[in-house]
Amino acid sequence: MPGPIQSIERAVAVLRLLAGAGQGLGVVDIGNALGLAKTTAHGIVRTLVDAGLVVQDEDGDYRAAPALSDLGRPRIDANDLRARAVNWADSLASRTGESVLLATLSEGRALVVHHVFRPDDSAQQLRTGTSLPAHACALGKVLLAWAPVRPDRRRLIAMTGRTVTDPAALRRTLAAVREQGWALEVEEAAPGVAGIAAPVRDLGGIVVGALGVDGDVDRVVDVRGRPRAGLVPAVRQAARSISRGLGARER
Amino acid sequence: MPGPIQSIERAVAVLRLLAGAGQGLGVVDIGNALGLAKTTAHGIVRTLVDAGLVVQDEDGDYRAAPALSDLGRPRIDANDLRARAVNWADSLASRTGESVLLATLSEGRALVVHHVFRPDDSAQQLRTGTSLPAHACALGKVLLAWAPVRPDRRRLIAMTGRTVTDPAALRRTLAAVREQGWALEVEEAAPGVAGIAAPVRDLGGIVVGALGVDGDVDRVVDVRGRPRAGLVPAVRQAARSISRGLGARER
Repeated sequence: MPGPIQSIERAVAVLRLLAGAGQGLGVVDIGNALGLAKTTAHGIVRTLVDAGLVVQDEDGDYRAAPALSDLGRPRIDANDLRARAVNWADSLASRTGESVLLATLSEGRALVVHHVFRPDDSAQQLRTGTSLPAHACALGKVLLAWAPVRPDRRRLIAMTGRTVTDPAALRRTLAAVREQGWALEVEEAAPGVAGIAAPVRDLGGIVVGALGVDGDVDRVVDVRGRPRAGLVPAVRQAARSISRGLGARER
Repeated sequence: MPGPIQSIERAVAVLRLLAGAGQGLGVVDIGNALGLAKTTAHGIVRTLVDAGLVVQDEDGDYRAAPALSDLGRPRIDANDLRARAVNWADSLASRTGESVLLATLSEGRALVVHHVFRPDDSAQQLRTGTSLPAHACALGKVLLAWAPVRPDRRRLIAMTGRTVTDPAALRRTLAAVREQGWALEVEEAAPGVAGIAAPVRDLGGIVVGALGVDGDVDRVVDVRGRPRAGLVPAVRQAARSISRGLGARER
C-alpha cells in the first residue's frame, strides 16, 4: 500500500490555514506559514480554487469557500452541465444521425436533462425532464456503474423481457461497463429501441452525467447485436470533450 | 507557474463523494466511482483520514468527518500537543541543562503550555499558563514567523530597551527566522534572560507550537551574543522529533 500523499497533506494544511485565518491570505502568506516555495503554494491554492474549496476575494487574497460545509453537493448543477454539453450534444447528433440524451442520476433513475432530436424530419417528442429506471437504459447503466453506492435491488423492475433485474447479473454488467468505459442497452427499456452511452466526468474524476444516443435497434446495433461502426467512438469522444471542459483529465 | 495538482483534485473528489453518499463507502466503491486503482484510492483516503477530514466507521467504511465544517480549528489542541511533546521536552532539558518551554500563539502572545524546570536545585516557578508578548521572546518569534497573519502593530510594546517594536524591523527579523529555521532572543523580554526556539509542525507543515530553552543570558549566548555551541541543534532536533510524531515531514 502506498504511503501518505504529501500534496494532499499540504492542501489540507492550506484549507485549515485559510479556514482559521479570519481574513484573506496571499500566496506569500500561505507559503511562509507552511514553509513552501511560492510556486508550490500557488499550485496548491489554484487547484483548490478550481475544485471549489477556496475562493479568491476582490483583493486577490484567498479564503476558504463558504460552501466548504456543503461539500456533498455537486460542484455543478444540471443547468451548468447542460450549458457545458449543448454544443457537443448537437455535434454528436449531426455526426451519428441519432437522438442524443444527457442524463444525471436521480433517485435511482436516469433523469434526462438535455435532449437533441434526431436530425431528420420525423415527428419527435421532447424527453427533457423525463426519466427511466437506471438499470434498464444505457445512460443509467453508465450512471450506476460509477455511482459510489450500489443500486437499490427493490428498484430493479422489468421494463421488457430483456431487462436485467437480477442484482448479481446487473453487478457483472456494471463491472463490464466500468472496464470498457461505455454502456450498451438493447431493448431493455422498450421493444425496438437500443442505446449507447458514456460517462461525463467532473474535476477529480467524479461522474456527473451520462451522454448517449438511442434509436431504432436496427440503426444502433448490427444483426449480431454489436454497436454499429463509429457509434461508440463518437459517443465516447463527445463525452470526453464535455468532461475536458469541466476540468477532468484524460483517461 | 505549475498546473493543477492531480492528487489534490482526486482528494477533493473523494471528499465530495463521501460527503454526498449518505452512507459509508469502501475503498473499492471509491475507486470504482472515480476510476482509480484500489491502491490509489486507498492512499488518498488514508491521507485524508490522517489529516482529519475523513473517518473510518465501525464497519471499516469511510465517511466525511463530522468536523469538515470546522476545518479552521486546529487538528490538535494544547493538551494533545503537550502530551506529544513531554518526553522530548524532558530530554531537551537534561541535554542542555536549561529550562524548556512549549508555547502556542494566543491573541498575539506566546502562551506557555508546558514548562520543564532547569535540571538543577534552584528554586523555580512553574510558568505553564503564563504568556509573553510574542514579538519579545524566541518562542513568540517562531510562532509569528510562521503565522499566516502579520503581527498586530498595536501589540508591539517594549518590554526592555532591546525589544524590537518597529514593524519593519520585526518583519525583517521574522523573515530571517523563517530562513534559518529557529529564533534567538537576547534580553528583549527581560533583562539578563535569553532564549532560543524552533517550530513544531503538524501534518502538512502547519506550525502549531514553538519549543525552546531560556535562561541566564551568559549561559545561552557567548560574549559576542551568539548561541552557545550545541543549543540550537538540540532545540531544533527536539522540535523536529515532536513534529515527526505529529506526522510532519522532514524539511
